[in-house]
Amino acid sequence: MALPTVNKQWRLTSYPEGMPAEGNWTFSEGAVPEPGPGQLLARAIYLDVAPYMRGRISPQKNYAAGVALGDVMMGGAIAEVVASNAKPYKPGDIVVTDHNFGWQEYAALRPAAVRPVDPKLAPLPYWLDALGMNGLTAYFALLDAGGMKAGDTVVISAAAGSVGQIAGQIAKLSGCLAVGITSSPEKVRACREAGYADAIDYNAESDLPAAVARACPAGVDVYIDNTGGPIHDAVMQNLATHARVVIVGSISLAGKFGQPDIGLRFQRQILIARATIRGFLVSDYQHIQAEARRRLGAWHAAGLIKSRFDIAQGIAATPGAFLRLLTSRNTGKQLVQVGPDPTAA
Amino acid sequence: MALPTVNKQWRLTSYPEGMPAEGNWTFSEGAVPEPGPGQLLARAIYLDVAPYMRGRISPQKNYAAGVALGDVMMGGAIAEVVASNAKPYKPGDIVVTDHNFGWQEYAALRPAAVRPVDPKLAPLPYWLDALGMNGLTAYFALLDAGGMKAGDTVVISAAAGSVGQIAGQIAKLSGCLAVGITSSPEKVRACREAGYADAIDYNAESDLPAAVARACPAGVDVYIDNTGGPIHDAVMQNLATHARVVIVGSISLAGKFGQPDIGLRFQRQILIARATIRGFLVSDYQHIQAEARRRLGAWHAAGLIKSRFDIAQGIAATPGAFLRLLTSRNTGKQLVQVGPDPTAA
Repeated sequence: MALPTVNKQWRLTSYPEGMPAEGNWTFSEGAVPEPGPGQLLARAIYLDVAPYMRGRISPQKNYAAGVALGDVMMGGAIAEVVASNAKPYKPGDIVVTDHNFGWQEYAALRPAAVRPVDPKLAPLPYWLDALGMNGLTAYFALLDAGGMKAGDTVVISAAAGSVGQIAGQIAKLSGCLAVGITSSPEKVRACREAGYADAIDYNAESDLPAAVARACPAGVDVYIDNTGGPIHDAVMQNLATHARVVIVGSISLAGKFGQPDIGLRFQRQILIARATIRGFLVSDYQHIQAEARRRLGAWHAAGLIKSRFDIAQGIAATPGAFLRLLTSRNTGKQLVQVGPDPTAA
Repeated sequence: MALPTVNKQWRLTSYPEGMPAEGNWTFSEGAVPEPGPGQLLARAIYLDVAPYMRGRISPQKNYAAGVALGDVMMGGAIAEVVASNAKPYKPGDIVVTDHNFGWQEYAALRPAAVRPVDPKLAPLPYWLDALGMNGLTAYFALLDAGGMKAGDTVVISAAAGSVGQIAGQIAKLSGCLAVGITSSPEKVRACREAGYADAIDYNAESDLPAAVARACPAGVDVYIDNTGGPIHDAVMQNLATHARVVIVGSISLAGKFGQPDIGLRFQRQILIARATIRGFLVSDYQHIQAEARRRLGAWHAAGLIKSRFDIAQGIAATPGAFLRLLTSRNTGKQLVQVGPDPTAA
């Protein structure tokens, strides 16, 4: 089968000030690359869009290098191998890459940058979700950084999002009371379907600290903070003694990058509760991922972890899908399908 | 020797709003108590005044019960046994009690509330300092909650205060770069004499974050936060990757109890640095104090930990000494001598 020669791509052409807009990227056509020695060429099926990408398109300091202006936007993908100079990969194999594919149709990759996907274990989108970085993030944030144990009250913000929906299910199967905070009645329903014992629509509450207090009568033992901002403030006023707060994301700041974040400080509450707040990055856990992946796979196989997906269609939709995510309009893990899924029924 | 019958006391008669004033306490005379069965009667030599007491005179929630209006103000003391129905204590023994003596000249105590003092090991004031709660606080905040290890850059606020001066010396003897933050040139000198590699007078700096950056070129690995407020903010902008922040006290809020603490939020910096912030209370470490006391005693005996004391004279001076502390006018551990020290030369 002759390969196409045109590779549709989204390049970052300006850094956003505040909330990104589609105009920060430019749609372009490049050449489909030739795989070099030891490389494979892969065709994107699903492109990832994820909150962490906001930090990569800012000139501010971040935990990882940003995307240079003019470069193809970074991002992971589930892809099909179409040519291979890298054993054992062969055309037709499905692979996943967490960050290195980019917002484009074709990429030449080193085998170290990909992991094989077994479509019999789970539908392809799961490999960028519960069986990928989102699953590992929820797993390590709760069980390592958060020290979650049975009986804990566990609050999770952005609860209907990619990490949030998995975290709620891990909290439930761990014998905990999972309480989600999310942004619409539809997402409250999605949280309950995912197994949350309770969910709060923060847009519907005039007194969010009081709503958290009602949902968590024994206080909050573990808080997975995906948002920062006023949701953070509401939970911080309800900490149980020895509470553990894990800062996983700060999507409430997506439109405020580089600006001072002014709000309530909680040193006194942290002291009184002897709480722990910890910044979390899943890449710090690379050396101990194998066991986590095995457990996440077993939970998925047992039906204990299911994900809802929100899949946009066509590579042209990619920046728009990313903005949906940053403005809380998605429900479930946001992806973009850019080519046929050979495993779909 | 006949005992006096009059016991001079300070009773809390109103809760302060904001910064306390001497008028919140009333000087009164009670009866010297009779020691009951199993009790000892002790005469105060040194009364303790300490920042944590601010939290005990507020109707707001705290980690421990507050002082009721009309009651003798709570506090620790180094005292001499003057009568005893509690073996093995006998008149002339010196004891220390961390919280249970009160701002008064005489107290009847259960033996479980006191520890024996060996005046040969250290002068009496040390038993309310490096060999007491302050030493344990510095020890566990650095070595347990802060996970301090050789080579770390360690910043300590209220560095010339009771916990601060000990913490700086423990950091130094642990192979760390100790940087103090304090409030006057005199206290900067005291920090350097105590072994701090560098000390910053925050009142002399127009750009405190930049001053912290200059003193800590590799970033801050461990921060012992005794103050909260703008000093906290300045250090938070200089965290090294995997920094550990230990919230030990919040003396900057002494005049703002119960008011919202508005300022910069640092979720993004915490995430980027994967920092840990932990609220600390020394009473959580009661079950593992013996080893810490042994090490602190050995360091003191070896001359590695010395304290500077700021000792007011006479029980009438007690509220004023407490206010000196809350307004940063003391240098070193603040005590009040209310009776003769039989061990003094």
